[in-house]
Amino acid sequence: MKEIKGGITAVRGIRASGISCGIKKTGKKDLALIVSEAEASAAGVFTENRVKAAPVILSQKNIKNGRARGVIVNSGNANACTGNTGYRHAGEMMNLTAKSLGVSPEKILVASTGVIGDPLPIEKIKKGIPVLVKKLSKAGGIDAAEAIMTTDIVPKITAVEYKYGRESIRIGGIAKGSGMIYPRLATMLAFITTDIAISPKLLNSALKESVDKSFNMITVDGDTSTNDTVLVLANGLAGNKMIANRNSKEFALFVEALNHVTTALSKMIVKDGEGATKFVEINVKKAKNFEDAKKIALSIANSNLVKTALFGEDPNWGRVVSAAGNSGVKFDPDKIRVSIGEVVVFKNGSGVKVDWERKVRGVMRERDITITLDLGIGHEDAKVWTTDLSYDYVKINGSYRS
Amino acid sequence: MKEIKGGITAVRGIRASGISCGIKKTGKKDLALIVSEAEASAAGVFTENRVKAAPVILSQKNIKNGRARGVIVNSGNANACTGNTGYRHAGEMMNLTAKSLGVSPEKILVASTGVIGDPLPIEKIKKGIPVLVKKLSKAGGIDAAEAIMTTDIVPKITAVEYKYGRESIRIGGIAKGSGMIYPRLATMLAFITTDIAISPKLLNSALKESVDKSFNMITVDGDTSTNDTVLVLANGLAGNKMIANRNSKEFALFVEALNHVTTALSKMIVKDGEGATKFVEINVKKAKNFEDAKKIALSIANSNLVKTALFGEDPNWGRVVSAAGNSGVKFDPDKIRVSIGEVVVFKNGSGVKVDWERKVRGVMRERDITITLDLGIGHEDAKVWTTDLSYDYVKINGSYRS
Repeated sequence: MKEIKGGITAVRGIRASGISCGIKKTGKKDLALIVSEAEASAAGVFTENRVKAAPVILSQKNIKNGRARGVIVNSGNANACTGNTGYRHAGEMMNLTAKSLGVSPEKILVASTGVIGDPLPIEKIKKGIPVLVKKLSKAGGIDAAEAIMTTDIVPKITAVEYKYGRESIRIGGIAKGSGMIYPRLATMLAFITTDIAISPKLLNSALKESVDKSFNMITVDGDTSTNDTVLVLANGLAGNKMIANRNSKEFALFVEALNHVTTALSKMIVKDGEGATKFVEINVKKAKNFEDAKKIALSIANSNLVKTALFGEDPNWGRVVSAAGNSGVKFDPDKIRVSIGEVVVFKNGSGVKVDWERKVRGVMRERDITITLDLGIGHEDAKVWTTDLSYDYVKINGSYRS
Repeated sequence: MKEIKGGITAVRGIRASGISCGIKKTGKKDLALIVSEAEASAAGVFTENRVKAAPVILSQKNIKNGRARGVIVNSGNANACTGNTGYRHAGEMMNLTAKSLGVSPEKILVASTGVIGDPLPIEKIKKGIPVLVKKLSKAGGIDAAEAIMTTDIVPKITAVEYKYGRESIRIGGIAKGSGMIYPRLATMLAFITTDIAISPKLLNSALKESVDKSFNMITVDGDTSTNDTVLVLANGLAGNKMIANRNSKEFALFVEALNHVTTALSKMIVKDGEGATKFVEINVKKAKNFEDAKKIALSIANSNLVKTALFGEDPNWGRVVSAAGNSGVKFDPDKIRVSIGEVVVFKNGSGVKVDWERKVRGVMRERDITITLDLGIGHEDAKVWTTDLSYDYVKINGSYRS
């Protein structure tokens, strides 16, 4: 497997475009379209928030048939909490895109991201869609990646290629999101394309497995949004024999490559976390089971006290131990071992005495920091990626709508 | 019932003192003692963190006999995560206090608050204890309140008096805490004294009931510490007939007065929340049950996105609705109604159209803000008190140990 350029449009038969249709006051791009020239197997994972935005409900319905041709996305407005008008607007986005492309409406998926509660400026979007369709191209992947950004600083683009037998399979992905990032998704959108031939059912399994190890293992601020959506389209143009066996080597290889793409996008999201000055890996080891390890890792990653200490470059391991103790998971504090980078700072129920602080200060000054908590109970590990909590996080979120 | 002056020492037979023994580099007070001249019924509620500080474990043991004479407390050092040395130090605090007072050691309760992980400077404390004992007085309640502060800006003191028959009963309380504040306590200490005569068992019931409605309904940053402790001593010097019946009017009156004290202290803690510029009441109404209402209220109160919007005085009700949707509680988004102050901003599944923003802007500028979410399902309500999330929160917690 190798990383390649081109993102979603590196994949055979995928074209994309992104334009400014006037939703964002700044004049930045805010409308994106991704289209597969051949009908594709399609799968999706959506927010578990009880309050779901209109486009989420619409896409959940359309994805049920397992087939799709394209995805229309706007940023700058989440089309959430807008009542019946919101559902009508999402439907209009779907219908007009389908009509402009000459495909049936249920083959179009819809996503929105941005401010919650304002009515979608649907007339602007309606004017934009025919322009988007005209601009569809192999070079348009970057425009689409830019057009789905909200508070993101950088677009998030990745692609890989791997060989299996005579065929080469490509997978590309774009994502957005930097605040409201939390397991069970968050204000996060990701769109993945691949030219592999795979059944919708197996594509769905692969996506769920992959999301659990990537997008569900990142957290910026512990919030889950109304709009989170991860979609994958697999159009079969790589020419491989259709994958329909879950126990096949082909399937395992595909999942591995998909994991690579989703993990890369996940880390990009965290690195672009709102106000982030640090990229932090919380590594919980030797738990009784994966769920326990994950719970502890998330409890540490979501602690504002841990996050502000990271921002202050303060190796305050006491807050790490305390956050682990708050996870609800049972463990013996006398058996755990905490390291910052490679330096052990806590073991046998108390802080390490010798000269750890000088060593750790250097580690804390790095941008990338790993905190490891070894429970010494079992054999399961979990890794969570997160950021610190900075002045800029407060600034960005205190004035988001202004 | 009326509020009276004097805090814990307004209560008959209670003396207190607070001094600086040198734990805090600033020279501020850091050691406190509260003593009852008569042996008192005693009850306590402690942190549910899996990692418990040494003084918590010691006090949990001593409180089991239901009787106590005094409480020794230090601030500036939590005596947590310090291994066996920590237990030895907590024991020394207990023993020396008992010896200086001439009482048996198991009648002394111990609490600590401050930085986690540093060894307790026990020699300074040992020198301080005899001084504390000498300084015990009716005027010492304020000194004790000051000596338990860490990042607190103001001491937290309250007292009430109520009449029942011929007796007047007094209850006084002091508390500390401003960060790491979360239900199931947090880095929070509260010490309550009363001269009522009540059995240890009923005192314990009253305390648990009262804590559930007060200290367990506040949150600053969603973190629970290793040291949280609420203790109550009831020395019987009011001269009432011993309360031993849970269904008596005397018991109900006492619980009501105790609630007044714990709620007052809880609100003081939130108002002094680290970096807080707002005091926010989250009022969830018409839930199916209290637990659901509480879960939703806490999910809103702990959302960093809601808290930063409050700091920015942005009436971003979308984040309130989204945070409610993340609580794990099932509800119908089309049935809920959200108000900021008295202004309804969301109903029938969408934002209110007419002129709400101008009205709400004024409400947002106040220091005290109430957000109400009416679920329209059942008959149970819950109120949670919290703060915004400001630059200063990040500043205080990014440099706590320096």
